[in-house]
Amino acid sequence: MKEIDNLLGFRESIKVVDATLRDGGLVNDFYFTDDFVKALYKTNVDAGVDYMEMGYRASKKVFDESKFGKWKFSSDEHIREIVGDNNTNLKLAIMADIGRHDKNDFDEKVNSPVDLVRVATYIHQMPEAIDMIEDAAKKGYHTTCNIMAISSAQESDIKAALRMLSDTPVEVIYIVDSYGSIYPEEMARVVDIYKEYADKYGKTLGIHAHNNQQLAFANTIEACGDGVDWLDATYMGMGRGAGNCSMENLLGFLKNPKYNSNPVYKFLSQYMQKLREDGVVWGYDIQYLITGLLNQHPRMAIQFTKDKRTDYDEFYKEILN
Amino acid sequence: MKEIDNLLGFRESIKVVDATLRDGGLVNDFYFTDDFVKALYKTNVDAGVDYMEMGYRASKKVFDESKFGKWKFSSDEHIREIVGDNNTNLKLAIMADIGRHDKNDFDEKVNSPVDLVRVATYIHQMPEAIDMIEDAAKKGYHTTCNIMAISSAQESDIKAALRMLSDTPVEVIYIVDSYGSIYPEEMARVVDIYKEYADKYGKTLGIHAHNNQQLAFANTIEACGDGVDWLDATYMGMGRGAGNCSMENLLGFLKNPKYNSNPVYKFLSQYMQKLREDGVVWGYDIQYLITGLLNQHPRMAIQFTKDKRTDYDEFYKEILN
Repeated sequence: MKEIDNLLGFRESIKVVDATLRDGGLVNDFYFTDDFVKALYKTNVDAGVDYMEMGYRASKKVFDESKFGKWKFSSDEHIREIVGDNNTNLKLAIMADIGRHDKNDFDEKVNSPVDLVRVATYIHQMPEAIDMIEDAAKKGYHTTCNIMAISSAQESDIKAALRMLSDTPVEVIYIVDSYGSIYPEEMARVVDIYKEYADKYGKTLGIHAHNNQQLAFANTIEACGDGVDWLDATYMGMGRGAGNCSMENLLGFLKNPKYNSNPVYKFLSQYMQKLREDGVVWGYDIQYLITGLLNQHPRMAIQFTKDKRTDYDEFYKEILN
Repeated sequence: MKEIDNLLGFRESIKVVDATLRDGGLVNDFYFTDDFVKALYKTNVDAGVDYMEMGYRASKKVFDESKFGKWKFSSDEHIREIVGDNNTNLKLAIMADIGRHDKNDFDEKVNSPVDLVRVATYIHQMPEAIDMIEDAAKKGYHTTCNIMAISSAQESDIKAALRMLSDTPVEVIYIVDSYGSIYPEEMARVVDIYKEYADKYGKTLGIHAHNNQQLAFANTIEACGDGVDWLDATYMGMGRGAGNCSMENLLGFLKNPKYNSNPVYKFLSQYMQKLREDGVVWGYDIQYLITGLLNQHPRMAIQFTKDKRTDYDEFYKEILN
């Protein structure tokens, strides 16, 4: 991607993954209407998006079902109500969040509309993540492993995790900048580390970025240019805190003619804008810049946002103390 | 800047230029209160910012003085009312916009609080820009040349302009992404072109980015890593349309201990947030993404914003037609 002819051309191996229901669900506790989800599904199909993440499959033993919308639990039945038999080119994913999932909630692939299980894990949970990957693969699913919060992990631990994953059936390993604290030139170095293992063990790489420093899109296309193939995005960047790489930015950048921005703009006008008007709040703001710069989880910035505070200087002092 | 030791260190030659009054003035027709401007000046001094652009010095023969705030005309008297004798490390700049200026409005430097004249020009206006540069230099000012809208210019014309500037006393040549349509890996190539001439003729390079694709900060630090020394930013990214690289992002990135973010966050809380609450609108939005992607001037997107429209899909069709 870094040479001029590659800039004008495109790479067939690139896959776009819509994570709106899942990462966006963290903003509104997964209370999306069926109308919204059906329109999102149709938009992804029409726009040529490759994968749609249908939410988390969280364990009902861990979370109270009455306190969240259904896309936190994303059962096969819920998914079928939206997609029927999904006779489209769009593939479907769900996320298993290690420690908050139950592998018994995952039926055999042959009985499920889901194609892909994305296993999200902190680096100290790798054995449980690998157990989940192996279980899902055995049941017939494609799998990814999304190692979170790597900006606060040691390089040596990341390498150990990559080595552990090399022996598993996982197909795609994600670089996840959970705190939105990585700069593009650092991203290039992170990709180098991941790529060494990916190339050696036949794995594909993915990128999931956060927008704390207004770099989610920039880091995504940096990684793409460095050889990362699976690119996460969300409509209007909807996602936890500062949100994610926005779908409209990403599809505008990608040159494969199978991608089509028109349905995206329509969905933004008709659905995402409505969420905004209804008072659902996400996206870049100063408080998220501060947690990103300080390489911290955005939870304090999310609380600052909920409290409708704008005393950024006081917030900065609170975080430093 | 691209090697790990340089990432941890800093480059003395980097200068941060606050363009809030000038590019931000395009948002509110330069109607900043004296209280705002004094606080901005003090913040720049306290934050260690190197230059503050005090607005345009537009010709009153071209613009009706009654229709704009004073920072469109930025007389020496107006500036002195804010800065007195400016006994600080902060240097002061004004912008001469070719075709909308009058060189007779520029007194000898010895009589003026201004240190730097920034000459903004489209590429077809180079001879008039050079005339202005030479006049300002002769009067004792430092000068920059900001060649605008380069994403719609031919490389051969850009090279011709750089060759013309090499024979002038101009000290800094700016890369200006007026339409916010350049990607970081393209920026790296643009810098290569400029750097060839800058190195040969002893000029310094600057970068002025727009945020149409959420890349103003990313392009600024890309250029910085490629050897560009003068970095434009505005508080909260305030600037025409999608706005600029934000000061808070940039100072968070730069490692020189002379820069200090605390006064910046305070100014954002006390002054920039107030502008927002008063209904002054700027910053990234879908309509600006669309003009950026299509490499167009943002004027239609600005009108779309003023009309409070959110039918992005219709806007996209209008632009394509």
